[in-house]
Amino acid sequence: MQNFTFRNPTKILFGKGQIQELAKEIPAGQRVLITYGGGSVLRNGTMDQVRAALGHAVVSDFGGIEPNPCYETLMKAVQQARETGIEFLLAVGGGSVIDGTKFIAAAIPYVGEDPWDLVGKKAPVLQAVPFGTVLTLPATGSEMNSGAVITRKSLGAKLAFGSPLLFPRFSVLDPATTFSLPPRQIANGVVDAFVHTTEQYLTYPADAPLQDRFSEGILRTLIEVGPVTLREPQHYEARAALVWSATLALNGLIGAGVPQDWATHMIGHELTARFGLDHGQSLAVVLPALLTECLEAKRAKLLQYAERVWDLRSGDEALRVLQAIDSTRAFFESLGVKTRLKDYGIGAGDIAGLVAALEAHGMVRLGERQAVTLQVSRRILERAL
Amino acid sequence: MQNFTFRNPTKILFGKGQIQELAKEIPAGQRVLITYGGGSVLRNGTMDQVRAALGHAVVSDFGGIEPNPCYETLMKAVQQARETGIEFLLAVGGGSVIDGTKFIAAAIPYVGEDPWDLVGKKAPVLQAVPFGTVLTLPATGSEMNSGAVITRKSLGAKLAFGSPLLFPRFSVLDPATTFSLPPRQIANGVVDAFVHTTEQYLTYPADAPLQDRFSEGILRTLIEVGPVTLREPQHYEARAALVWSATLALNGLIGAGVPQDWATHMIGHELTARFGLDHGQSLAVVLPALLTECLEAKRAKLLQYAERVWDLRSGDEALRVLQAIDSTRAFFESLGVKTRLKDYGIGAGDIAGLVAALEAHGMVRLGERQAVTLQVSRRILERAL
Repeated sequence: MQNFTFRNPTKILFGKGQIQELAKEIPAGQRVLITYGGGSVLRNGTMDQVRAALGHAVVSDFGGIEPNPCYETLMKAVQQARETGIEFLLAVGGGSVIDGTKFIAAAIPYVGEDPWDLVGKKAPVLQAVPFGTVLTLPATGSEMNSGAVITRKSLGAKLAFGSPLLFPRFSVLDPATTFSLPPRQIANGVVDAFVHTTEQYLTYPADAPLQDRFSEGILRTLIEVGPVTLREPQHYEARAALVWSATLALNGLIGAGVPQDWATHMIGHELTARFGLDHGQSLAVVLPALLTECLEAKRAKLLQYAERVWDLRSGDEALRVLQAIDSTRAFFESLGVKTRLKDYGIGAGDIAGLVAALEAHGMVRLGERQAVTLQVSRRILERAL
Repeated sequence: MQNFTFRNPTKILFGKGQIQELAKEIPAGQRVLITYGGGSVLRNGTMDQVRAALGHAVVSDFGGIEPNPCYETLMKAVQQARETGIEFLLAVGGGSVIDGTKFIAAAIPYVGEDPWDLVGKKAPVLQAVPFGTVLTLPATGSEMNSGAVITRKSLGAKLAFGSPLLFPRFSVLDPATTFSLPPRQIANGVVDAFVHTTEQYLTYPADAPLQDRFSEGILRTLIEVGPVTLREPQHYEARAALVWSATLALNGLIGAGVPQDWATHMIGHELTARFGLDHGQSLAVVLPALLTECLEAKRAKLLQYAERVWDLRSGDEALRVLQAIDSTRAFFESLGVKTRLKDYGIGAGDIAGLVAALEAHGMVRLGERQAVTLQVSRRILERAL
């Protein structure tokens, strides 16, 4: 096991009716800014529940945070918050709203010239406005971690930043608030949680048997409940298992003490930036291709994955590894998430541009051993055609 | 899944050499009291490492905290800490030292007449001196939770207490500090972590598939690394996996959202209090007997346990359940921990006294459905003969 530091202070309030507990979690009398996205939380009743729970608290709001939250939008919230002396932020939405709120939280007290430097120049986060979340989309894990991905359209940039100061103080996870999500978002969420897990698991053996077991547990749970929750959106128990799995897939626990990959995410980001694929779609395209391309380097863990996640316990080892990759692809497809570039209208002629974008963003040595060079990324994209 | 609240803010510093990071974790200039036990940390060099790491910090110490830490001893530390204006406590030891330090932390600022009321009358913990730990014995999980078990000899009482204010600020887990432990303590630690897990797992199905997978992951890891770490005490990787498993077995995560049992612990406490069995020994005696006695109520989870933890996937279901219980007993015995009352010189004539002690301590309806009455406890003890 590698040495590690782990700390995750976010308080989770999980289950039916937990939104009612909100007022106890926000210091009394503070000026609260509620942040949200496209308005689905207004339509599905979640915002009504939030406002009812907050009662007479001094509350204002800021809507319109988009998927892949943009600096340009978020800076409007920063300005509003500064002007009105906001003391606490409450993100009501999915990963994009929460990621965006993390940027807002760090940007409000930022003393430099342009808060973009927190992202673009990795300027340190020295303080942040405290915030909580009401999660409405199981996928990114942002509700229990301290990282965020922010897009700046004018620069064509989609970059990650984070700080120990950016853990939510609390997150309310009521699976019922996610019942009204369209199937495409649920399917993407299952893929996202799945690939968050494989990024921290499908690398090389590192004598971390418990982390492996936990990762395998998340993957098996997603395989088990993913189809159920897609077919029966109001099946509380299946949705609850998905929500908790997605949170634990990226709260730091399964990645503590083990090597991590993240090449699938980095290559996927370019697909989203250039061709507008949903984040989950981009991962579903890249992962099977990457596992095939990097099969030798990942062989030992792929074999373990075949055995423990897909119950492929006998027969030729090389075949089992390939079957496990095929099973992964078939699982994504069974959720309705396409796994080939051509399914999204992307062809061989587009690959050079994607590789150039990776190069422009410094993604020239990816993966757990920094062995995914631009050449390897190109081969991965070719395998994904 | 049941509704739950989960929060665990303890920072973990895991791995070789992490004691060196201590000074960064304690606010500069604070008066620190180091607490420890019987002196093994003096003999094995851990305390030297701690003092070297703390450098010129103002440090005093208090040794002699015993296994099953006693109010009588701990109050001496409280007095010393009050007299010297201690601002931070640093527990260097195993679960007993850490549990004892939690009591000291809560007792120092306690304004009532007798800090025992925190334990005996469950007086609320309104403040606590901050503390960190350097763990030297993998077993109890106290290094990453907010509970403690305190004994008061004059009352013959061994009782639990806790508070969200009693999470360690940090815990240093360097597996190498545990290399010099005697085999008996390691074996007890494996059993303790194992039974912490079964208390939160072997109950009844509660639609919590991820928690089940995590529990099964801890159990399988303990079965895998337990014998290795006992046979090769200096095998870093095996010891590291044991340490991390023991921590995660009782940090709140696997128990979030599921029913919990704890009858094995409650009955075991009486064996320790009356006959001086090690905590781990008491659990090894009670668990197999309890599982056999409560077989019908626990059947569904026992079958799952048989399949997923012991790979008993085929054949008669009733037989598989019994085989799983037998395998549990055989595992404990293989570690050198005896599983029968007679192995500790306890006979049928002692059972009435044990049942009377349970009654005196209010342990009259134990288990996940409060179905373990005194009569059931008696039958469990009879099965354990």
